[in-house]
Amino acid sequence: MPEDHDSVAHGMQPEDSPELRALYAGFEKYSMKPLWTQLGDLMPMHPKPQAVPYLWRWSDLLPLAEASGDLVPVGRGGERRAIGLANPGLAPHAYCTPTLWAAIQYLGPRETAPEHRHAQNAFRFVVEGEGVWTVVNGDPVRMSRGDLLLTPGWQFHGHHNDRDAPMAWLDGLDIPFSQQMDVGFFEFGSDRVTDYATPDYSRAERLWAYPGLRPLSGLAETVASPLPAYRWELTDRALAEQLLLEDEGVPATWAPGHAAIRFSNPTTGGDVMPTIRCEFHRLREGVATPERRDVGSSVWQCFEGDGVLVLNGTRHKLARGDVFVVPSWITWALEAEGQLDLFHFSDAPVMERLHFMRTETGLT
Amino acid sequence: MPEDHDSVAHGMQPEDSPELRALYAGFEKYSMKPLWTQLGDLMPMHPKPQAVPYLWRWSDLLPLAEASGDLVPVGRGGERRAIGLANPGLAPHAYCTPTLWAAIQYLGPRETAPEHRHAQNAFRFVVEGEGVWTVVNGDPVRMSRGDLLLTPGWQFHGHHNDRDAPMAWLDGLDIPFSQQMDVGFFEFGSDRVTDYATPDYSRAERLWAYPGLRPLSGLAETVASPLPAYRWELTDRALAEQLLLEDEGVPATWAPGHAAIRFSNPTTGGDVMPTIRCEFHRLREGVATPERRDVGSSVWQCFEGDGVLVLNGTRHKLARGDVFVVPSWITWALEAEGQLDLFHFSDAPVMERLHFMRTETGLT
Amino acid sequence: MPEDHDSVAHGMQPEDSPELRALYAGFEKYSMKPLWTQLGDLMPMHPKPQAVPYLWRWSDLLPLAEASGDLVPVGRGGERRAIGLANPGLAPHAYCTPTLWAAIQYLGPRETAPEHRHAQNAFRFVVEGEGVWTVVNGDPVRMSRGDLLLTPGWQFHGHHNDRDAPMAWLDGLDIPFSQQMDVGFFEFGSDRVTDYATPDYSRAERLWAYPGLRPLSGLAETVASPLPAYRWELTDRALAEQLLLEDEGVPATWAPGHAAIRFSNPTTGGDVMPTIRCEFHRLREGVATPERRDVGSSVWQCFEGDGVLVLNGTRHKLARGDVFVVPSWITWALEAEGQLDLFHFSDAPVMERLHFMRTETGLT
Amino acid sequence: MPEDHDSVAHGMQPEDSPELRALYAGFEKYSMKPLWTQLGDLMPMHPKPQAVPYLWRWSDLLPLAEASGDLVPVGRGGERRAIGLANPGLAPHAYCTPTLWAAIQYLGPRETAPEHRHAQNAFRFVVEGEGVWTVVNGDPVRMSRGDLLLTPGWQFHGHHNDRDAPMAWLDGLDIPFSQQMDVGFFEFGSDRVTDYATPDYSRAERLWAYPGLRPLSGLAETVASPLPAYRWELTDRALAEQLLLEDEGVPATWAPGHAAIRFSNPTTGGDVMPTIRCEFHRLREGVATPERRDVGSSVWQCFEGDGVLVLNGTRHKLARGDVFVVPSWITWALEAEGQLDLFHFSDAPVMERLHFMRTETGLT
Repeated sequence: MPEDHDSVAHGMQPEDSPELRALYAGFEKYSMKPLWTQLGDLMPMHPKPQAVPYLWRWSDLLPLAEASGDLVPVGRGGERRAIGLANPGLAPHAYCTPTLWAAIQYLGPRETAPEHRHAQNAFRFVVEGEGVWTVVNGDPVRMSRGDLLLTPGWQFHGHHNDRDAPMAWLDGLDIPFSQQMDVGFFEFGSDRVTDYATPDYSRAERLWAYPGLRPLSGLAETVASPLPAYRWELTDRALAEQLLLEDEGVPATWAPGHAAIRFSNPTTGGDVMPTIRCEFHRLREGVATPERRDVGSSVWQCFEGDGVLVLNGTRHKLARGDVFVVPSWITWALEAEGQLDLFHFSDAPVMERLHFMRTETGLT
Repeated sequence: MPEDHDSVAHGMQPEDSPELRALYAGFEKYSMKPLWTQLGDLMPMHPKPQAVPYLWRWSDLLPLAEASGDLVPVGRGGERRAIGLANPGLAPHAYCTPTLWAAIQYLGPRETAPEHRHAQNAFRFVVEGEGVWTVVNGDPVRMSRGDLLLTPGWQFHGHHNDRDAPMAWLDGLDIPFSQQMDVGFFEFGSDRVTDYATPDYSRAERLWAYPGLRPLSGLAETVASPLPAYRWELTDRALAEQLLLEDEGVPATWAPGHAAIRFSNPTTGGDVMPTIRCEFHRLREGVATPERRDVGSSVWQCFEGDGVLVLNGTRHKLARGDVFVVPSWITWALEAEGQLDLFHFSDAPVMERLHFMRTETGLT
Repeated sequence: MPEDHDSVAHGMQPEDSPELRALYAGFEKYSMKPLWTQLGDLMPMHPKPQAVPYLWRWSDLLPLAEASGDLVPVGRGGERRAIGLANPGLAPHAYCTPTLWAAIQYLGPRETAPEHRHAQNAFRFVVEGEGVWTVVNGDPVRMSRGDLLLTPGWQFHGHHNDRDAPMAWLDGLDIPFSQQMDVGFFEFGSDRVTDYATPDYSRAERLWAYPGLRPLSGLAETVASPLPAYRWELTDRALAEQLLLEDEGVPATWAPGHAAIRFSNPTTGGDVMPTIRCEFHRLREGVATPERRDVGSSVWQCFEGDGVLVLNGTRHKLARGDVFVVPSWITWALEAEGQLDLFHFSDAPVMERLHFMRTETGLT
Repeated sequence: MPEDHDSVAHGMQPEDSPELRALYAGFEKYSMKPLWTQLGDLMPMHPKPQAVPYLWRWSDLLPLAEASGDLVPVGRGGERRAIGLANPGLAPHAYCTPTLWAAIQYLGPRETAPEHRHAQNAFRFVVEGEGVWTVVNGDPVRMSRGDLLLTPGWQFHGHHNDRDAPMAWLDGLDIPFSQQMDVGFFEFGSDRVTDYATPDYSRAERLWAYPGLRPLSGLAETVASPLPAYRWELTDRALAEQLLLEDEGVPATWAPGHAAIRFSNPTTGGDVMPTIRCEFHRLREGVATPERRDVGSSVWQCFEGDGVLVLNGTRHKLARGDVFVVPSWITWALEAEGQLDLFHFSDAPVMERLHFMRTETGLT
């Protein structure tokens, strides 16, 4: 079986002739395109993403975000001071992957990003800083280092900075999927946030953030998680305990020395949102993961620690805040030189719900 | 439409005759029974349970359990020093309801109840005391006041008392269902518990007890909850927050002044076990619930507080530890004279999965 | 591991003493029953059904049903001239198994059995005869040899005989489950059937009886199948094709020489009703099934053919119409001496939904 | 709320300055793109598809397909003589919609299109002709007028024409989704079809094509329907019966005078494939549907009859074989001047599984 997909479709190339030209002109006239001139591109032997594997340095991103804070106002119309991490292979679009948008968002001291809602699902992940509250359907949610915050599709949300220092964080959305598949709706809300309170815990957390305890007022399954925040304190403890349990000989880690949790919807046990999976991974010092590739694309952010990323065969030293993208069917591996903590999000729910998921691991 | 079901089937009673007697003798000979002699009993207008509404006083139960501690040994063969709360309507069986077994179990100082497993699903609820560990599949689980502990079907489990004081608690199982439906299997395990350690938290809690954080080593849905313990501290906090949120005008309680949580399986969001639902309810002082009746049976234990139970029209003052049973389609209501906390379990998952559930509320 | 469950619970029998008698008197007074006096019965090593394996001869059943036609009127109040096949082990109840009721129902020429509905799920299977229509929610459904007819829970139904000849058939319901679990509701309908038309196909069949074609007016999942009839012509063809495909070397049969279909709900692909599974089996001449036992109970009716049933080790020659019951965990096997066709129903959906199902096959 | 989405994002346009240019140069250097320069496009108020509503005439398509039959060989490499209906709004891609590929495929007398398989899901719909068999996983499936034939993802399939006349049909696949989302895999199979038999019914139909009868050898749920063919005879009868039932006053049609069926997977009751919904619609003479728009895209083919399509406000007279595409959130309506039969396929399963579906109906 020829692995060279470029040969696919070539078998049918007819000889040039006046009749053929007339045929092709007819196709052109009636908006038709033959499969035989394009099969290899349309139906490759395996995914051949246009998106490229890529790494952005937090040390590059943050200064530019800060500079934009001085130069670009935030408010109604522009909505967010967010700068997309644009995959070079997907230019001119600002897509990180064909499904996922990733951006650094920046909010200056005392600023407000006004409320709106959209069909697109979104989350924030905080690699450093504090002082901003995201108001989700009127409920103020504190944002602190290590926290994952959700604003699922069609929930009103705005942000406000309660402090005299700016704050930056990572935004993740399914904008590219939404735009390419034509599913987006958008609606403006309040020009300010509807509640400037700054509680430690949102009302939804106070209702939902207990393991296995479900309020009787919330028995229906919800499309997205009713929990608006997953706090670093608990994520950190869950990962630490997995490694301690492993030390005690108890099966708890995902792989030896590799602790990992998936953020989940407590009403179903499934992913937090229909299109985006969020996870956190911790590797012990010295652990190297096997090379692996999956259908679907994902984005990682180095939260803390020392390590090396091997992305499509190229080695990159990782530092706090660095973001990298793994397109579909591109191999990756990680090597932890100290304890290495990473946040991870992907379009795996899309791939699984539509039964396109495949995985190969231990390739090398 | 005649509501008097006693008339059902009477319409077909044939006149006595030698031929009829011959017919009935034929039925007898060939193990046949006509519907027309029994329809009203077999197919009542609404559930007419043999089980009766009943209340057991903790002040009666506990001394008898203590006395049994002096007189009855615990160990292999007898397995558990448990005394069933036997519904008088279901004699001679020791069933609390047609589906549910409820018992007070008593373990003396330093005693061990040996390990075994069975297809029947079981839990323990601790109304008072501490010092016993239940060892579930080799994992020691602390039992303290207010905790719910699970030992789902076919998981090995034993108990040991690490203290010099005895301890008693409530056992709940689906033994009556299991026995009537012929689904039970049983297997002896170790004559002692396999791990006498007394950690504050079991290994499974350390792996699972984080809201919305799912270990990647535990992505498969499980029939029963992987969490072996639901701790009072969290149950109490969840209920308290519901009432505080209600005070703030946020929809959080099940009904005004009535906070409630359902213990759930974090891998599905559903009930903790396939046949038994467990909940905890807290009523504010002064709150009275509407009269209500449901298909299926349930058992409540008063955990703390002052209040009155109205069961099938009869009023009972409740005290700590009192247990009452609500058979199918029997009305009940609660009136809180101070804050009233109750643990509740039922066969509702059976009724819902088989689509027999019906509820009437606000009857009076 | 001791397989003799009689020893279970014996380990804790305390010595007789005045104190013990006082304790037991206290238990009696307060409606308590200790586990240690009954563990072996309550929690056997494996299911020990009270129901016994049993076979009823159609040649015994039919004459008695006919005799009842002369002696017993049918009409409002008695509702149905149905004679239950009462498992001798479950006396005094008319239960065939702990979950299932099976009866022979008889309707004389031109008679009507009036309409009613009940929470209990029901079906009819026709081993011989024709001429009766079951009217389900106002829709007349023809009953002919080999047909399976459904009247799921809470659907109004009555029967009328349009011919000058009587007709008898097999009724199957979940009455024993319903009665023991207290889930039954009943409501009278019309004293006559609401539509005396005698179409070949009911309206629901005309809407639903196309493989894989779902009306857009019927996109919601339904608890029970919307198809009221599964016609013999199609069942027969499906079974015949499985054997032909097997002859052609195509995997199609359940086991070599053993064709089988499960009647299913086209809105889900699952069982036709929440508590009852219905299947049809055809064995080629000479085929013997391996001995097998399952959790849960089932009932078979020999539809046609020559064969032997081996039930709990005892051999029975089968003839058309013979009905036999297989209680939980009792072994059975079939040997076909000619082509052997059998209708089968069971409580397997209950066992599967509550996760109690177990099966052992190829025991001997 | 401003409905003009063009204003979105304009609120943040900063004044030009050397610093801003430096900022934008930094963005460029580090593969970043600010949201504020593109928000309106990325997150429109409602779907603004690039795909345009479009109609292809069968009378244009068929002659060009025939001409290609003379000029273009079919065989290994090119795989299929298929000409895509390329949405002008999606040029240069040959996509009919962002998710769906539609093509006319043409096979000359006695020709073979070789076997292959791919992750993409595919079907064929036959608007006219006969004589070709599609061989699916080795099972020959007859293709005749009105039939829907499935070749779900990763099933080997080829076609061969057993007659002396050519045949053309409509191909539908999820190629655009697959290519944009990078999920495609492809594998060559036999250069010829593996079975040149020409049976009336495939083996899979003989096993599965009985309403509600599930082989015990096929109890597992399958991702795609196990039925490879949905025959016109049954589709036609189901639609005819819906209209007859409507005449009799029975709720059966989707809307007055509008019969419709959805092709479904008998193992689940759901869609035939994870990404593609297939339906057939029949309108009585004189019926006009209300204007409607949905999230997601769909393609219709006029199978037979007289009528008018109102697509995005423009009227088109329909003739046999005409194909039209309805992009996301574009309004459409149909008016039947005689009985009007249409085949319909869409990406609705994608939209529903990812919870992006919305519908507006009765707009005018």
